Amino acid sequence: MKITPISGFPEFLPAQRIVEQHFLDVIRETFELHGFPSIETRAVEPVDRLVGKGGDADKEIYGIHRLARDDDGPEDRSGELGLHFDLTVPFARYVLENAGHLSFPFRRHQIQKVWRGERPQEGRYREFTQADIDVVDVGELAPHFEAEMPLVIAEVFRKLPVGRMVIQVNNRKIPEGFYLGIGIEDVAGTLRIVDKLDKIGPAKVKAQLVEAGQTAEQADQCLALAAIRSEDLSFVDRVRALGVQHPTLDDGLDALAAVIRAGLDNAPGALVADLKIARGLDYYTGTVYETQLVGFESWGSFCSGGRYDSLASDGKTTYPGVGISIGVSRLLGLLIGKGLLTASRSTPACVLVAVNDEESRALSTRVATELRARGIPCEVAPKPAKFGKQIRYAERRGIPYVWFPGAAGDDGEGGDQVKDIRSGDQVDAAATTWEPPEQDLRPQILRVETTTDQS
Amino acid sequence: MKITPISGFPEFLPAQRIVEQHFLDVIRETFELHGFPSIETRAVEPVDRLVGKGGDADKEIYGIHRLARDDDGPEDRSGELGLHFDLTVPFARYVLENAGHLSFPFRRHQIQKVWRGERPQEGRYREFTQADIDVVDVGELAPHFEAEMPLVIAEVFRKLPVGRMVIQVNNRKIPEGFYLGIGIEDVAGTLRIVDKLDKIGPAKVKAQLVEAGQTAEQADQCLALAAIRSEDLSFVDRVRALGVQHPTLDDGLDALAAVIRAGLDNAPGALVADLKIARGLDYYTGTVYETQLVGFESWGSFCSGGRYDSLASDGKTTYPGVGISIGVSRLLGLLIGKGLLTASRSTPACVLVAVNDEESRALSTRVATELRARGIPCEVAPKPAKFGKQIRYAERRGIPYVWFPGAAGDDGEGGDQVKDIRSGDQVDAAATTWEPPEQDLRPQILRVETTTDQS
Repeated sequence: MKITPISGFPEFLPAQRIVEQHFLDVIRETFELHGFPSIETRAVEPVDRLVGKGGDADKEIYGIHRLARDDDGPEDRSGELGLHFDLTVPFARYVLENAGHLSFPFRRHQIQKVWRGERPQEGRYREFTQADIDVVDVGELAPHFEAEMPLVIAEVFRKLPVGRMVIQVNNRKIPEGFYLGIGIEDVAGTLRIVDKLDKIGPAKVKAQLVEAGQTAEQADQCLALAAIRSEDLSFVDRVRALGVQHPTLDDGLDALAAVIRAGLDNAPGALVADLKIARGLDYYTGTVYETQLVGFESWGSFCSGGRYDSLASDGKTTYPGVGISIGVSRLLGLLIGKGLLTASRSTPACVLVAVNDEESRALSTRVATELRARGIPCEVAPKPAKFGKQIRYAERRGIPYVWFPGAAGDDGEGGDQVKDIRSGDQVDAAATTWEPPEQDLRPQILRVETTTDQS
Repeated sequence: MKITPISGFPEFLPAQRIVEQHFLDVIRETFELHGFPSIETRAVEPVDRLVGKGGDADKEIYGIHRLARDDDGPEDRSGELGLHFDLTVPFARYVLENAGHLSFPFRRHQIQKVWRGERPQEGRYREFTQADIDVVDVGELAPHFEAEMPLVIAEVFRKLPVGRMVIQVNNRKIPEGFYLGIGIEDVAGTLRIVDKLDKIGPAKVKAQLVEAGQTAEQADQCLALAAIRSEDLSFVDRVRALGVQHPTLDDGLDALAAVIRAGLDNAPGALVADLKIARGLDYYTGTVYETQLVGFESWGSFCSGGRYDSLASDGKTTYPGVGISIGVSRLLGLLIGKGLLTASRSTPACVLVAVNDEESRALSTRVATELRARGIPCEVAPKPAKFGKQIRYAERRGIPYVWFPGAAGDDGEGGDQVKDIRSGDQVDAAATTWEPPEQDLRPQILRVETTTDQS
């Protein structure tokens, strides 16, 4: 019976999983430092809550059904359930369901698997992990939250071994006001065309804009706006220099300037105002975010989001929100898949405690218990084999130290000894006091350096 | 549009989720201290791999299907997929699939959601989290692993605020050898009846044994064996005193004695030899484990497992294993549901940095950045409201400290101040040096003490 992987449902080997755990730990820790509590929502939502949400036509929903349907009780008739395809739809539902128990503005982070029945390809999976932060308020949401989100993300990426990640920020009101200011009425249609800039280039975008009814001059103005990108506040003057006036444009420039200013203050070099960033502008109404991994721009955005005026609504109350989502599996799938990240060992164990003979296993176990009591992960050797064989057991897993309990040292004296199997150094040690160097305590995540786009 | 929970798919509020995170963190940390690396498997397995595995007839499998089936590509015909109902079946498959990349004996932990379409009831869910450890080897598995498993679990429960958890251990060879020794041939059938002891009592068990063809004397012997329970090694003499001889019984007693001895050495009081413990004896072949929460025995076992001679097999190679699974959701659902556990706050934030006015928000953000750089989780107040209102914002979330940036202190002087809003104490402080007391840094998990069974 040959077992083969299921396309789109990737799994990691233990050392790769250690890399993933490191990413998830850094993400969670940073989210928590910024005061975002965790929530988890169930994997399923009623299908009618999933269908038609999320905007992308290619999102494919997985329904679930019980294989043994015949004995369904009355509680099973409540409607078909499907696996969630993102964490925003479930979060919106959670807010509505629990509004009476939450304090607003409500901030949360959520790190969970999601499922999409898309055609799998490199970096696109059917099961993948996302890590989201959102802030949601009742009625109105203060604009400073739009500046806060990318600062959290910048800190996450500063702490992760991914190289330089740039957060591209725009505000939907800028193109909207600009287009209205030059007499274009079909804002959404124009945005959809301009959004293709990276794919088809300015000449084809201009042709499509003209085809859609804009004058050549309007099309040039749209392209001039989309070309503006600055790490500082100079984008404001560059937009002004295009000579377009509209109150919505003013609002957008002020709002984007506030976000970029917060970035300059708190995360210099992490944010860039990039006026071609559009995103699914059906539901985003203010700031929008995308990211680029420097040197790997062609991989696209690993983290994106924006502001919604109506994240959720129960008919009476509207909940505006702003959020960003990190595509953890996508990022890791590419970095690990391309061999750019690896772990120094395939186990958390820092020490392998050797076993002299099966009768003295209890002695080795006591050593391990002492080490663990002081936070040192370890494992007792599975067999009282020759020490060379026990050392190879550690070597194969990348465990850096082997501990020889009493009378087992090379010198035949009675005390414990510990060997760094990388250097071969072996020293006397006591399980109650010995400490490994800080960098050996946990597996290290190793980045294979490269500066070119390998995609 | 009224939103109601879906029966069997529970969700936690943020403070409850903090309790769950603490449990999951302690479990993972302890598993890692014992050298168990993490793996995660995909949520789905081919349905034909799920059906007929796992033994319990009432395990209901959820299949998944794409709502948009019409455009299925060829890669979708590869067979129906279902959500896994435990972590053992996927682990066995993972071992077979990756055997060439794993080093044996292979230890792993796995903490994931699983799904069962069972009728939901208190403590029984359709979506729930399990935390498993297993060791698997090729061909043969050394018996000391059967002693190691409960030591790991004992350490987990010692660190969790659940009160005293007792791990009940038996070895399948004891009843098997004993029954054979007194002339009972239907070992499995006898075990199934004896297993009902806690539910129907000894009189009815005896009646059923006699009905099944055993003599009254054999039935009494079975009951005498099942009544033996000891925290030390005295169970061996008590079994011997029943006067039954069989080599399989000898093997079982030796093996169980080794497990109990390791418990006495390393986790005194945590293990008990309990000869009535049976568990799904179709696949367990050696040591079996269950647990009891002292004072809440009627809630049943929150953690169980045992040894399999054939955890996985590819026809040529057999992989014996031993493992235990903690029913995290079941344990938390009951402890949180009964109000026995709560968190000291509903957010990771230890400090709320107040905002004097919207213009000086950048100042407050810089304070927060300083605090975070030293690992202190904090949040900046959402509005420059009156300080009383900002304090109430912290109070509602249980955030213990409010920070007043420069010139905001009650005394009108220029320095920063921090207020413990529980005591009202307010002191001068600098964001670059101030430290909260250790116990305030993270949310505390509070146990409401009780000694009686409230189920």
